[in-house]
Amino acid sequence: MFATMGALGLAPTAAAQGTPQFDAPSASDFHLKGRSAGSVIVLGGGIAGLVSAYELGKAGYRVTVLEPRDRTGGRNFTVRGGDELTDTYGHHQQARFSAGQYMNAGPARLAQWMVTLDYCRELGVPVEVFTNTNADAYIHNSSMPDGRPMRYRTAKADTYGYVSELLAKATDTGALDRQLTADDKELLIEFLRDFGDLGAKTDGYAYTGSSRRGYTTWPGESGVPGVELGDVPTASEVFASGVGRYFSFEFEFDQAMLMFQPVGGMDQIPKALTRAIGADKVRLGCQATSVLQDDHGVTVAYTDPGGRARSLRADYAIAAMPPHLLAKLHHNLGGDVATALAAVKPASAGKIGLEYRSRWWETDHRIYGGITETDSDLTHVWHPSYGYHGDRGVMIGYYHYATVADRYSLMTPLERQTTAVALGERIYGPKYRTELDSSFSIAWRQVPHLEGAWHGGYDVQSAALKPLVEPAGRVLFAGDWLSNMDAWQHGAILAARKAVTALHTRALA
Amino acid sequence: MFATMGALGLAPTAAAQGTPQFDAPSASDFHLKGRSAGSVIVLGGGIAGLVSAYELGKAGYRVTVLEPRDRTGGRNFTVRGGDELTDTYGHHQQARFSAGQYMNAGPARLAQWMVTLDYCRELGVPVEVFTNTNADAYIHNSSMPDGRPMRYRTAKADTYGYVSELLAKATDTGALDRQLTADDKELLIEFLRDFGDLGAKTDGYAYTGSSRRGYTTWPGESGVPGVELGDVPTASEVFASGVGRYFSFEFEFDQAMLMFQPVGGMDQIPKALTRAIGADKVRLGCQATSVLQDDHGVTVAYTDPGGRARSLRADYAIAAMPPHLLAKLHHNLGGDVATALAAVKPASAGKIGLEYRSRWWETDHRIYGGITETDSDLTHVWHPSYGYHGDRGVMIGYYHYATVADRYSLMTPLERQTTAVALGERIYGPKYRTELDSSFSIAWRQVPHLEGAWHGGYDVQSAALKPLVEPAGRVLFAGDWLSNMDAWQHGAILAARKAVTALHTRALA
Repeated sequence: MFATMGALGLAPTAAAQGTPQFDAPSASDFHLKGRSAGSVIVLGGGIAGLVSAYELGKAGYRVTVLEPRDRTGGRNFTVRGGDELTDTYGHHQQARFSAGQYMNAGPARLAQWMVTLDYCRELGVPVEVFTNTNADAYIHNSSMPDGRPMRYRTAKADTYGYVSELLAKATDTGALDRQLTADDKELLIEFLRDFGDLGAKTDGYAYTGSSRRGYTTWPGESGVPGVELGDVPTASEVFASGVGRYFSFEFEFDQAMLMFQPVGGMDQIPKALTRAIGADKVRLGCQATSVLQDDHGVTVAYTDPGGRARSLRADYAIAAMPPHLLAKLHHNLGGDVATALAAVKPASAGKIGLEYRSRWWETDHRIYGGITETDSDLTHVWHPSYGYHGDRGVMIGYYHYATVADRYSLMTPLERQTTAVALGERIYGPKYRTELDSSFSIAWRQVPHLEGAWHGGYDVQSAALKPLVEPAGRVLFAGDWLSNMDAWQHGAILAARKAVTALHTRALA
Repeated sequence: MFATMGALGLAPTAAAQGTPQFDAPSASDFHLKGRSAGSVIVLGGGIAGLVSAYELGKAGYRVTVLEPRDRTGGRNFTVRGGDELTDTYGHHQQARFSAGQYMNAGPARLAQWMVTLDYCRELGVPVEVFTNTNADAYIHNSSMPDGRPMRYRTAKADTYGYVSELLAKATDTGALDRQLTADDKELLIEFLRDFGDLGAKTDGYAYTGSSRRGYTTWPGESGVPGVELGDVPTASEVFASGVGRYFSFEFEFDQAMLMFQPVGGMDQIPKALTRAIGADKVRLGCQATSVLQDDHGVTVAYTDPGGRARSLRADYAIAAMPPHLLAKLHHNLGGDVATALAAVKPASAGKIGLEYRSRWWETDHRIYGGITETDSDLTHVWHPSYGYHGDRGVMIGYYHYATVADRYSLMTPLERQTTAVALGERIYGPKYRTELDSSFSIAWRQVPHLEGAWHGGYDVQSAALKPLVEPAGRVLFAGDWLSNMDAWQHGAILAARKAVTALHTRALA
């Protein structure tokens, strides 16, 4: 039974562990066929577009990437000092972050199993831990009396303590005798006593607090045994506080620690891909306007950085643009493609980076990285996962979605900063305001040429999406939205590989 | 109530968070007194000795550190290629680790609250995450059928799932009505459904598996929704597997993630302290043989690196040596000191570093850092927390204590390697053997001049220890063993600060 319960064999293979199989196109594939690699236009220089161009380039395809922004990466966007953004609402910002300080405005974390890490390895992009979970970070719910935050470790100790106590009592009194054998009961209670830090049977398996909650005075030198946090709340108080709702996040397959990030910013990935493709094959500031295919190739019309109308012809095209923007292009890909594209709806999300003149969260709060959760508009507050002990640091002051993000998108950048700082000050105290240097905020639905954080309203496995899942003649589609891991680079990469494989298979046929 | 339950005020101060208060001695302290700083001999260049010398040096004390080994740091010992060790059993090793590869043979992790991090900040020692917990690391118990490992994430999903199901059922059937109000019950069941990924009430709140367990095929491109790990074990099977015994480790105050380590090896701390003290004030290869105090000072006899007898006189001495080795010195500190020293017993622990020619745990197992737990002699197996995606890496093949460590201490280094690799191969498969390049093992009880991993057999708060807690005339004592955090540098540092404060107070009196 255990042999299959998440277990691995004695000689685990990559395939056995879920690694996607992919044979990158190779120039040698053409040798026996007496053919050579053709030309491909890639619409969009985000992760899906770049990976498409990179993998096709390995086989000698002549690729040209058309990217409307002034950089590659798409939503993989690391904001540094000097970066400018004018959003579709007209809000203009120029980041004033100090040298070495940055925010990953889009994707920011990689799970160990994600194929994105394989590209980091292959391209020589060093990685470090992204601090997705931290026992010393806070939980702050408005229902908490006095509006004071708790540390995760305290909330967990209390919740796990009472859950364990209650289950130990129910088990011991026979309430679960239909479900549990005598052996089960003994093993379960032994586990619960350890898991919840409970008293003995003679103490009613009571949870009465634990050093796991934390200390008001840490254990130190002789004479200083430490003072545990006191005033343990009741079970009712713990359940009413709502702290438990945040615990399952860290169990999720895509969020469980350890998580990783590229050293120096997430955009090290698109930068490395762009170098590997060849910067001369990537045309920045080039906005596609039409995609017309015929029996022999694809013609793409676009405007160049000077605003001039241009066109480019190739054997194939891979459309790796946001689907709702692709839908606006003039094309002859057919009504089914248009209908399918219309089903995919962009979603809203926003982040604000707050640069501080000191790392007061490390010195005053003893929080080195991790995420504070709150039920306010801020939703998630991220402590930086780089630059520990440095002079400065960039907090992510909010990371929120949907209607909250839509509300904040209407605010000016200054209003967003003011609001975010006022809410954060409730959690962290005055330095959240007084130590602030500058901020940069992003509302993804309003970023030109991207206009969305991720996607919804459709099922990629459905028949309705089939016109996009399969090649539309000489045009193929790629993007996270065409995967089962929307909003993750992992999904964008695998969708790109699928398009590359389909294109290469056809080219070889 | 929440105001005190691990919560912090709106304007938290360092003191409110348990930070130890310490006023480092300063030259200005002497100005009003018309005195000047005296001389101090520090016996032992481990962390307690170095911090003593460093802090006293800030006030101008003329310090001399006598260290018998060829390096400072004591048990803070980072092993690199070329390092040699002959233990007290006569086992000789020279490490053959490649450039950039190392093992932290002693302390290896720092909690965010530990004062050790303050020294890293003050001394400019950069830190990075130590991967103490990893959802993708393994649990391997000999009771598991087929001897196959499980991932933490799978073990947690199943354990939390069944615990939640059982408690939800007991709650729903009224078995806990004496403990819980109707509101409590509703909130608790809502929590449990999320925490355990349970079905609805109509499904009996059943746990039937979860994507949290992991996948045999990861979610990928369109057409690949992912295949969850199947064959969910029964509750009985989960409780019998014993996996739950490992979960509480990560809740402990001193072990909860996030944890940290110095970049480049733990010995960056003693190296930085030694530089700050002044290397000329640290005499390596100098073994103390007697400590004799009189009304005016302390005379320490020692042998220099050439084996010649030497002596040194100073106003004070701080004895920062292992207590059981200090007990063997000739001294005139009195019978109470001798009795107290005799109470402190050294403990055994061992580690082996295994350098591999590839990072197969990353590529084949998708494990980037973290600790695998096993009930075999290996006890803990550590994946490296540095060098991700590199060509090579050093695993800690075992980290074990007490009688297991004593058994392994009797083996030759080659026998240890052979045994460790055979046990590890059961968890990880053949590459655990075939990719091995070299190893280095340490048995702390047998390391000359240290002869112990940590301490037991006494209570630092007891009256019996008082002769060591307080100055013995002009001789003061320091070490992790004189703190409430034995085996942690945090404890050594705070004990050293206590000795420094006592010495300085007396000097100013």
